[in-house]
Amino acid sequence: VSAADPPAAIAASWDANAAAWTGAVRAGAIASRRLATDAAITAAVLARRPRRVLDLGCGEGWLARRLATERVEVVGVDGSAALVEAAAAAGGGATFLRLAYEDLIADPGAAGTGFDVVAANFALLAEDLVPLLSALRRPGDGPLAAGGALVVQTLHPLAAGPPYRDGWRTEDFRGLDGGEGRWRPMPWYFRTLSSWVALLREAGYALDDLREPAHPGTGDPLSLLATAT
Amino acid sequence: VSAADPPAAIAASWDANAAAWTGAVRAGAIASRRLATDAAITAAVLARRPRRVLDLGCGEGWLARRLATERVEVVGVDGSAALVEAAAAAGGGATFLRLAYEDLIADPGAAGTGFDVVAANFALLAEDLVPLLSALRRPGDGPLAAGGALVVQTLHPLAAGPPYRDGWRTEDFRGLDGGEGRWRPMPWYFRTLSSWVALLREAGYALDDLREPAHPGTGDPLSLLATAT
Repeated sequence: VSAADPPAAIAASWDANAAAWTGAVRAGAIASRRLATDAAITAAVLARRPRRVLDLGCGEGWLARRLATERVEVVGVDGSAALVEAAAAAGGGATFLRLAYEDLIADPGAAGTGFDVVAANFALLAEDLVPLLSALRRPGDGPLAAGGALVVQTLHPLAAGPPYRDGWRTEDFRGLDGGEGRWRPMPWYFRTLSSWVALLREAGYALDDLREPAHPGTGDPLSLLATAT
Repeated sequence: VSAADPPAAIAASWDANAAAWTGAVRAGAIASRRLATDAAITAAVLARRPRRVLDLGCGEGWLARRLATERVEVVGVDGSAALVEAAAAAGGGATFLRLAYEDLIADPGAAGTGFDVVAANFALLAEDLVPLLSALRRPGDGPLAAGGALVVQTLHPLAAGPPYRDGWRTEDFRGLDGGEGRWRPMPWYFRTLSSWVALLREAGYALDDLREPAHPGTGDPLSLLATAT
């Protein structure tokens, strides 16, 4: 896996980091998540009063478990077999499936259909996302029900730091519990605000809501949280 | 006029700065406008293929004159009598009226009705903008035609600098041609991105497009440019 194939490098890093990531998320080691963004996406999803939610890029499954406690029927999908295994082992009432984004593009209904919300929490890391996002709302076999919403949370441009332009960056997981030695760096594609808005439009969505969850102490914005239909 | 009454302080500063402002705009002294934002709002307005445009907070009238060269029928309104006078004196085919925003709130049709676009170029500086923006699209007597669009350009959060939260700031016009001695400082209300989005929704608009005109050399974003219907 080389830097010349970012999607493969992203997938490989999730598999390599699965145990460390599961430990970090479950220990609450990521301060921005604990302080703001976990609650923000939970609230944004529940604001739609969904009966069924697809947790896209569910990782070790915390959001699926959280939503299941609100009597939401949740299916979590992730491309990493190790993360799906960790999610399934934790139980919590949600269903977890190993599905890569390419699998959903090839067969949009692979995780089921009729979802009121598709949630993607810091889970859209590739450059070309139009095929995936379009597949989610494809009439007939796409997972989103008519009138359903896509809820996307991503890093805030101000939290990501300069330069303010679309492009590949590297996440080294520095600062997470355990130190950098345990982690395999991951490429991810940074998008400006207007690039996110254009992407959603290009994939057929209208932007319904845009929030900026902030650090409760400093007020600094931590994420962009978009709801699109 | 005290800082306790920002709208009055804003109005007073425009009157006091009218001559200096007119000179600075017409000399191209504001680099961000010359390099990016003038062309950006012109293109955003023309993208709607409008027959009639209301230039809200037109100042000395450059945008109205620019649009008039494209055979658009333009009415420019501004609360500053001195700026409207400067605009009218320059001619250029547009019509200019002295109307404060409060006048438009009280009588939404005061500048006419049936406009395909209302453009506000760095012209929304107050804290409470819902009454004005709602009045623009009021069915029956609001200036916006059915299906018309509001095009708003405002300072980009990254260009405005920290702190990233809604609140009053002071523009001292430092750096503009002539030095600070000639200028009367002006209060203006900074809004975060999500605050702009929420404001537009609260005033009854849907966000259609959001762009970030950038400095052609550095790529740094200079403005937010929203089209709402």
